Amino acid sequence: MNKVAIIGVGHTKFGKLEEKNLMDLLCDASLEALNDSNTNDENFDSVYLGAMCPGEFNHLSGIASALVDRLGLIPAAADHLKNGPASGGSAVKAGFHAIASGMNSMVLVVGGEKMTHISTPGYITSAVATLTHHQAERRHGTSLPSLAGLLSRIYLEKYNAKLEWLSDIAIKNHRNGALNPIAHFQKKIEDFMESAVKKGKGNWNTIYEFLSDDNSNPIIADPLRLFHICPISDGAAAIILCNGEIAKKFCDNPVLITGIGQATDTHITYEREDITVLNALRVSSDQAYRMAKKTPKDIDVAELHDAFEILEAVESEDIGFFKKGEGARAAHEGRTEIDGEIPINPSGGLKARGHPLGATGVAQVVELVWQLRGEAGKRQVSDAQTGITCNFGGFGNNIISILVERM
Amino acid sequence: MNKVAIIGVGHTKFGKLEEKNLMDLLCDASLEALNDSNTNDENFDSVYLGAMCPGEFNHLSGIASALVDRLGLIPAAADHLKNGPASGGSAVKAGFHAIASGMNSMVLVVGGEKMTHISTPGYITSAVATLTHHQAERRHGTSLPSLAGLLSRIYLEKYNAKLEWLSDIAIKNHRNGALNPIAHFQKKIEDFMESAVKKGKGNWNTIYEFLSDDNSNPIIADPLRLFHICPISDGAAAIILCNGEIAKKFCDNPVLITGIGQATDTHITYEREDITVLNALRVSSDQAYRMAKKTPKDIDVAELHDAFEILEAVESEDIGFFKKGEGARAAHEGRTEIDGEIPINPSGGLKARGHPLGATGVAQVVELVWQLRGEAGKRQVSDAQTGITCNFGGFGNNIISILVERM
Repeated sequence: MNKVAIIGVGHTKFGKLEEKNLMDLLCDASLEALNDSNTNDENFDSVYLGAMCPGEFNHLSGIASALVDRLGLIPAAADHLKNGPASGGSAVKAGFHAIASGMNSMVLVVGGEKMTHISTPGYITSAVATLTHHQAERRHGTSLPSLAGLLSRIYLEKYNAKLEWLSDIAIKNHRNGALNPIAHFQKKIEDFMESAVKKGKGNWNTIYEFLSDDNSNPIIADPLRLFHICPISDGAAAIILCNGEIAKKFCDNPVLITGIGQATDTHITYEREDITVLNALRVSSDQAYRMAKKTPKDIDVAELHDAFEILEAVESEDIGFFKKGEGARAAHEGRTEIDGEIPINPSGGLKARGHPLGATGVAQVVELVWQLRGEAGKRQVSDAQTGITCNFGGFGNNIISILVERM
Repeated sequence: MNKVAIIGVGHTKFGKLEEKNLMDLLCDASLEALNDSNTNDENFDSVYLGAMCPGEFNHLSGIASALVDRLGLIPAAADHLKNGPASGGSAVKAGFHAIASGMNSMVLVVGGEKMTHISTPGYITSAVATLTHHQAERRHGTSLPSLAGLLSRIYLEKYNAKLEWLSDIAIKNHRNGALNPIAHFQKKIEDFMESAVKKGKGNWNTIYEFLSDDNSNPIIADPLRLFHICPISDGAAAIILCNGEIAKKFCDNPVLITGIGQATDTHITYEREDITVLNALRVSSDQAYRMAKKTPKDIDVAELHDAFEILEAVESEDIGFFKKGEGARAAHEGRTEIDGEIPINPSGGLKARGHPLGATGVAQVVELVWQLRGEAGKRQVSDAQTGITCNFGGFGNNIISILVERM
């Protein structure tokens, strides 16, 4: 199997980007990655796009083909991977297969979503809720936030954990996001509190008081409140993959994808033996570790899928960093901070970097590349050599793990 | 690169299948392919799904993951490829890459679409029209049928061809479809005429009179009439791919995918130097021929993408069977009949087998497998050993060619 190297990355700012449409965002991220990799004059074999709902949100289809045209890459092959919030990870995996097989030697992978122009957030929640099982879940009103709320209640009770510890994850991720110039929220939760105090909206003695006040942090899906849940964002991220043999021609510090895994779980969440266990992550990360001949102890930095802060806690366990039930406590104890034993989401994660659905799986890889190259600025994890991602599709029924290393 | 073998195929009937939903169709085709390949007890690494509009038509997303669960294949990886009417071809190509790379050894590829439940055909035409360029085409009312109408006019004038020759393609494909038990229309156009005569709807001396009568064959996109255009259909098709090394364990007569190509072209059709030339097909079929070390002369049978009958004519040229401008005449002369020099669409093609969008690219491969195994019944092409497909995405801006051979 051919080695697969990442030789360039691109990343738009994430956020409410009113002046850009979806195609603009995909082009911006792609052009940045092309420049970053010095491959502007190369022939590209393929473009793989990850996007969840361009049909539903933007009335566009065939956008991978259109993107090839806009970028001047005709006749490169073009495909669009659609795997819910893990569409970006699926696109990276498709690009990996194309190079690993020897069918392609130069591939652009881009993920993106344009969502904030939709005036009714309920439309977005409904579109995303089509990921749940119609008969067993959706027609009873179940949405992804409600499943995350249920998971949180069960987790907190079963493992004797505290809601404040989930808040600690949000606090950490906002603190990291404040160090990330492309994050949706470059602002600590402490700063949100301070602004609210200044505006006379209330007075709180601690950040936990601020975060448990129905006015400053309303309940979305009990017990989860606004600050426990990622925002709706626009944005795109891109990477250039090439055959490892030629990577050093384009780039002094290529990053290799040495492990990649993907696994499914039951569609109906109550059919799982234990909803607090993400079997799809256990299997997919195990595939990635085995392929790369690594263990969780070898990982220097991780980008996990904290669409809801409970997910970062559970994922940090099932990806092998902490024992079952100890993920939330570990975050509370600071073990997942940038200078902790296993830094999680130095980017700010989905909570603060933002979550333009299809972009996230690619953005996670971009952050790891920056970390491994030592280009992560104020949020740099010291001497990061190996990283792993968890990109979470459906409600945990399709999870992708990508393990990267310095070449 | 590992060899990739097809060891089993499945195919629902295509047509107006009121009693089945999309997931039923995908399962039916998949289970038939699993049975056909004797792989029911095998571990599957991945499931690749091709479907164009399950979000827009069926309010479903994450269906690849859901299908894995329904089929009892958890924790197999699952991905959904979305490439307009070429979604099925994209799914086959994704499965091919997974095996060729050595990452997977057993893969299910399934394509399907459920469309006929939508009561307003305009909704479908609009959804499909999102493939065209919004600013340059769609907002002026351009749809895929209208582009096919324009292409037909230019082709007929430029190459001094006759509309009747396009009718001949439809007549041939309906004649072939009448021999195909899974076709949407298992009825010759001659039989449609006979029924109309019996019902007192008119009297025509020849099939061409019937086909140029505004009552029996109304204009859809001038000069194309109803019988020059494929129907809206429901259906699904599936294939099982495995590493060529182990294919004979499961199957006495595996078929190898020895060539596969995919290429893009300009999104805006008027930007092409000559709209009658499908550059994406020239490039993709050339890739497939080179990879398989074959030429068009080596092909015994072809499944082309006749969503509009003009496309079969043009494709039969750009895939290398006939000189430019001679495809329609060749069909008129009978050279593409089942017993002709190069049989095209023995299945009945999209015109008669039907066109459930995402299913088509997979169904084309299934038909070739049946032909190469000698299992095509009354529509069998004598001693077919090598076949090729053209799966047409967008309006020719993303085309996939798959070349198969007996192992």
